[in-house]
Amino acid sequence: MTSGFVLALELIGTFAFALSGATVGVRRQLDLFGVLVLSFAAATAGGITRDTLIGATPPVALADWRYLVVAMIAGLITFYRCDIVERLRHPVQFSDAIGLGLFAVSGAAKATAYGLGPGGAILLGILSGVGGGVVRDMLVAEVPSILRRGELYAVAAALGASIVVAGEALHLPSTPLAIGGAAACFLLRYFSIRRRWMLPVARIESTQASDQQ
Amino acid sequence: MTSGFVLALELIGTFAFALSGATVGVRRQLDLFGVLVLSFAAATAGGITRDTLIGATPPVALADWRYLVVAMIAGLITFYRCDIVERLRHPVQFSDAIGLGLFAVSGAAKATAYGLGPGGAILLGILSGVGGGVVRDMLVAEVPSILRRGELYAVAAALGASIVVAGEALHLPSTPLAIGGAAACFLLRYFSIRRRWMLPVARIESTQASDQQ
Amino acid sequence: MTSGFVLALELIGTFAFALSGATVGVRRQLDLFGVLVLSFAAATAGGITRDTLIGATPPVALADWRYLVVAMIAGLITFYRCDIVERLRHPVQFSDAIGLGLFAVSGAAKATAYGLGPGGAILLGILSGVGGGVVRDMLVAEVPSILRRGELYAVAAALGASIVVAGEALHLPSTPLAIGGAAACFLLRYFSIRRRWMLPVARIESTQASDQQ
Repeated sequence: MTSGFVLALELIGTFAFALSGATVGVRRQLDLFGVLVLSFAAATAGGITRDTLIGATPPVALADWRYLVVAMIAGLITFYRCDIVERLRHPVQFSDAIGLGLFAVSGAAKATAYGLGPGGAILLGILSGVGGGVVRDMLVAEVPSILRRGELYAVAAALGASIVVAGEALHLPSTPLAIGGAAACFLLRYFSIRRRWMLPVARIESTQASDQQ
Repeated sequence: MTSGFVLALELIGTFAFALSGATVGVRRQLDLFGVLVLSFAAATAGGITRDTLIGATPPVALADWRYLVVAMIAGLITFYRCDIVERLRHPVQFSDAIGLGLFAVSGAAKATAYGLGPGGAILLGILSGVGGGVVRDMLVAEVPSILRRGELYAVAAALGASIVVAGEALHLPSTPLAIGGAAACFLLRYFSIRRRWMLPVARIESTQASDQQ
Repeated sequence: MTSGFVLALELIGTFAFALSGATVGVRRQLDLFGVLVLSFAAATAGGITRDTLIGATPPVALADWRYLVVAMIAGLITFYRCDIVERLRHPVQFSDAIGLGLFAVSGAAKATAYGLGPGGAILLGILSGVGGGVVRDMLVAEVPSILRRGELYAVAAALGASIVVAGEALHLPSTPLAIGGAAACFLLRYFSIRRRWMLPVARIESTQASDQQ
């Protein structure tokens, strides 16, 4: 992949993530600044945390103004015309799945380039994909939806990141590897939504019982 | 500005921010350690996050013991004599506005010195000013007040940071620039409180409707 | 202490911290991914934050795969057999106190090695010990228990970190110093649980009164 093509796809993912952040902000009746903060945080917190952890400072989402501009546009549209965003729910979910795949793959590749081993690189690929959603929900004092709903969201990111890490260990060429990883993540996410594949959720009988001791 | 003068003003801002953190801690009935953590977090989390993001490690608020001491004094006073802090509400709000201006200006200048472009520098100026308040509220599981109340708090920080960034692009001398930026931030904050200038807050009709689908 | 011995003790502490994270996740009925995230966050967030703040990137808990594996094992056991974890509550509390002492001591020593002064090193020792528990509770939108319960938890970490920092200033040999610091932390924590030594908790009469103004 040329870097221009990757950047274009990343900015589409940024836009989709920012819409999800702004929508949460509007639902929680934040003010205009709060909605813009949630747009930017949802779109960039995963990548900013990754870059900080691997020592790639300043993070690319702060150094390249295009991430900020794309997130602000998404935030302003959602703030003033959230009826449009609601109507576009399916395209947004589609873009979000593309963004998830791209961020997972580019996060794992970047972590590997900065010297992390397989476990750390997969972790940072997952973090790049899901970190924005976690920070978005923490900012409105909610338990992050990706920790409780049982959807195959982080698992899809883990699949994409793992394909990149495994392929790099086998010295496969990086461009098809990245495309394959992102596509696998996208497809797993897409089919898990359509077919309602779910993770198990914790049962609490025994825990409740022990709380009564 | 001499660096001694700036340090003195920054420590005044640190004290004011720490009082706000400790007051939130006392209201939420934290223990003594919790109140001190909120003092320190409210006073320094913005600057610590800025320094970490630009790679200026260790952050100055950890490397220079005076920030810790000032925050601890503010926390102890608030814990044991919060009646005094309540009586001083107006001076505290005044110092807080001064701190906001100083941190916004010094944050933007430091980010520029570490190579960030205009957008990133303004963002980090805002973060330096408002980050402590965000972390303070997240630590007590509340939606940060600066995201929802509609007050011109972050906007004032953005104004101060923008003046510094614009002036540096025009090669204006840095000392009057910093004074001007901090003063503009302070004045906008001050008049917005007195005249109740507010940001728009998200309306949710259409979103609620779509939730019922 | 040989580094192998320290690593073994640190992994025991990691396991104990991960159990506490996973138990919170199960109680809040997170899904499997959420429980594993809380395991890893509770076990490693303190050390990861410390390493990021001092510029030791990538953090050791990401670079060394054993931390991840130990945290995942603890998370899986808790998710599928939390009855066992409940029955082992006392051993877990015991391991947790050992982990607290070790992380406080190694955190303070590492911060000193990276050039921080006494105040910053003690702060980072405390952060290494208690940071995981704070992030664990923030991820489930609760006020961190170590900020409100009044237990001598952070104070024990501060004692261990202070002994290391004071001893290094006196040029005492580092191995007995680390053992002494960790033991002091463990003993203070252990006796404070048995004898119910508590920190003062904020009183709020005057604050409530002023809220009614």
